[in-house]
Amino acid sequence: MTKRIAILGAGPSGLAQLRAFQSAKEKGEDIPEIVCFEKQDDWGGLWNYTWRTGVDQYGEPVHGSMYRYLWSNGPKEGLEFADYSFEEHFGKQIASYPPREVLFDYIKGRVEKAGVRDLIRFETVVRHVEKIDGKFHVTVCDLPNDREYTEEFDHVICATGHFSTPNVPEFKGFDKFPGRVLHAHDFRDAVEFKDQDILIIGTSYSAEDIGSQCWKYGCKSVTVSHRTAPMGFKWPDNWQEVPLLTHVDGNTAHFKDGTSKDIDAILLCTGYQHHFPFMEDALRLRTANRLATADLYKGVAWVHDPDLFYLGMQDQWFTFNMFDAQAWWVRDAIMGKIQIPGKAEMEKDVADRVAREDAGEDDYAAIEYQAEYIKELISETDYPSFDVDGATEAFFAWKGHKKEDIMTFRNNSYKSVITGTMAPKHHTPWKDALDDSLEVYLQN
Amino acid sequence: MTKRIAILGAGPSGLAQLRAFQSAKEKGEDIPEIVCFEKQDDWGGLWNYTWRTGVDQYGEPVHGSMYRYLWSNGPKEGLEFADYSFEEHFGKQIASYPPREVLFDYIKGRVEKAGVRDLIRFETVVRHVEKIDGKFHVTVCDLPNDREYTEEFDHVICATGHFSTPNVPEFKGFDKFPGRVLHAHDFRDAVEFKDQDILIIGTSYSAEDIGSQCWKYGCKSVTVSHRTAPMGFKWPDNWQEVPLLTHVDGNTAHFKDGTSKDIDAILLCTGYQHHFPFMEDALRLRTANRLATADLYKGVAWVHDPDLFYLGMQDQWFTFNMFDAQAWWVRDAIMGKIQIPGKAEMEKDVADRVAREDAGEDDYAAIEYQAEYIKELISETDYPSFDVDGATEAFFAWKGHKKEDIMTFRNNSYKSVITGTMAPKHHTPWKDALDDSLEVYLQN
Repeated sequence: MTKRIAILGAGPSGLAQLRAFQSAKEKGEDIPEIVCFEKQDDWGGLWNYTWRTGVDQYGEPVHGSMYRYLWSNGPKEGLEFADYSFEEHFGKQIASYPPREVLFDYIKGRVEKAGVRDLIRFETVVRHVEKIDGKFHVTVCDLPNDREYTEEFDHVICATGHFSTPNVPEFKGFDKFPGRVLHAHDFRDAVEFKDQDILIIGTSYSAEDIGSQCWKYGCKSVTVSHRTAPMGFKWPDNWQEVPLLTHVDGNTAHFKDGTSKDIDAILLCTGYQHHFPFMEDALRLRTANRLATADLYKGVAWVHDPDLFYLGMQDQWFTFNMFDAQAWWVRDAIMGKIQIPGKAEMEKDVADRVAREDAGEDDYAAIEYQAEYIKELISETDYPSFDVDGATEAFFAWKGHKKEDIMTFRNNSYKSVITGTMAPKHHTPWKDALDDSLEVYLQN
Repeated sequence: MTKRIAILGAGPSGLAQLRAFQSAKEKGEDIPEIVCFEKQDDWGGLWNYTWRTGVDQYGEPVHGSMYRYLWSNGPKEGLEFADYSFEEHFGKQIASYPPREVLFDYIKGRVEKAGVRDLIRFETVVRHVEKIDGKFHVTVCDLPNDREYTEEFDHVICATGHFSTPNVPEFKGFDKFPGRVLHAHDFRDAVEFKDQDILIIGTSYSAEDIGSQCWKYGCKSVTVSHRTAPMGFKWPDNWQEVPLLTHVDGNTAHFKDGTSKDIDAILLCTGYQHHFPFMEDALRLRTANRLATADLYKGVAWVHDPDLFYLGMQDQWFTFNMFDAQAWWVRDAIMGKIQIPGKAEMEKDVADRVAREDAGEDDYAAIEYQAEYIKELISETDYPSFDVDGATEAFFAWKGHKKEDIMTFRNNSYKSVITGTMAPKHHTPWKDALDDSLEVYLQN
């Protein structure tokens, strides 16, 4: 009997999985029956922008953390699909740091071409997954019809992402702060903070990019509070980095070094949780946000039951191309072309990855670690081989450009490792390009 | 064997249920085993203020819709507990429109005295309720320990409220609006909107009260857009009522009558959904927000399976005292002192209530309808009889005071129907009382 496969989520990872199966079918192979469940009414995951925050029209937590005016914070040359280049999609080479709408268009182009939309049940949220007598029982709710139902599957591929459930710490005084306190997850439009003194807690990508957006769109000042160390870029004059917030008293923020600052809004850029409330206890991934995730053989197969897979649960330098490498590998594991070993060997694999990641000393080592991981996976499948080291080079160059000037790094161009062509220089420096529409971006 | 009862939620309704059972126990009766599951880390439901919006520290949707500076929008004389007066709690009579912190303190006082806190499992969210072989299987998640478990119960009393899941419509242009778009559910602090031109969609209590808060704390103007009819109060000069929003273009809001207004923020005061995603299809209440809810015999017993009860699911003029009347009635139904009839009779009861509500022509009729409902329920239990008509009088007077002046109605006083004493006049008019703390409010 044909196996039944449930893919949870139609974001970049889930779509990679759909494309992986379809590419096997294209080659004449018998593929399993696929059902992809997607909570939103369109595909693209977090690239499918919504103005909504909190809960959506059905009372379900809003998945999206995407905000307006977002441009890729890394070069597109580091994430290009090996089977679908930017040039194929846009009919020409484009500049290296596309805004959200451009990347969304690119992601959609591949799966539209693949014709896999019919495999997705939209506006269908997964309520519960449990394993009974060797089968996964997946209970979902058809949201527009408010109807719950359960179906059985041989495999579940969880591709629901890990940038949707915010990690939201509390600091003393938040309950009395006269202004907005929000997590990056709920940030939508920098214009809201025009002329305001904003406080950002955290130093990772959200802090760096949301602060930069607010600066670009005219906030009065940016104060970034760090727990461990400042980001250390060459910030504009109205941007300062300070030690950890101790408490807020009225609208005054106090920091560990005894300094203080009056602020209008507080943005918590404090990261996200791996959150799978729909998975029964025994199937639920619990991991730190790291390159070598806990309990996943080859970074994808659940060591306690390798009929279950998780895609894209790693901390990420590489993104779309890594999801592809994983999706092709998972496809071949499900189709029996790759053998999954016994539990002891799987656990050794996980431990080895952890040790290798821990041995790396800096971001450059981390990038190389993840590049090696991708090379390892694609060597085991028919995913089109590409110059992963070339993509690594683009990341290294990108890091240098950020160090030079954090407000101009997006003006640089890199060479595609898929087509070999150089990206054009964008027509407008990032800081002056206030219109982030696809139409305007493509005017090169 | 002792019956096991699950109460879902420890807000005003769930606490009324705990108090109802405890009052029977106090009189020497044998009561069932009670387990109350509460998602938050404290009791009080929406009166337990949180600065959080969106999802909480565990990734669960934030229940609370409470905002800072909220004062009761109706006189406390309309909601006083018959078994625990304001005078008993505060040691004196207090003014008629207490702020949130004062009412929270009052609610807590009764259940602290009753000693029922041990019956509550805090930070425990209900994931699923289903009926199997005559028993309710209630699956919950112990959030701090991220541990799911299932227990069996003979009865379930759903008291999770219906002001937690926002109804959030979309209007054209929201995706490009350069500013904050939020539902009342996510409103926390009026100071955020100081000096701003705000647009409110909707005309019910949230619109009236959030608009008034923002006006009080210094917003530049309030524009309220209605679908059917304006609220029609005598608003301040910088407050206008306009027809329904058609679309937003940039930061300009356009209305059905062709007028427009430039705005800084959009507040959707568009109501709430009855939302019980944790209930299996066959047990899930689906009702409009009305006085005569669908499918509930006596407004509480699920006609399709009267082992299940819903508390407080009505649209509300009366609140705490109505929840009490319901909780005492449910207790007696569970303890066999009240007999629940067959399905046909239950359905006739529901239809009769719908017809009676529909026959009423205005708000005054609605208040009287709900007063009669309370009288009906308390006549069937030992809940302390009180002057429900006196409470109705207070509501009628309140409506008159609002018509006179929407910005001064909270300066009035009413007589307690429990103790017979008149409330003192508050020391400061509502519009000048910027500090809403319990300490300041009680300085009479």
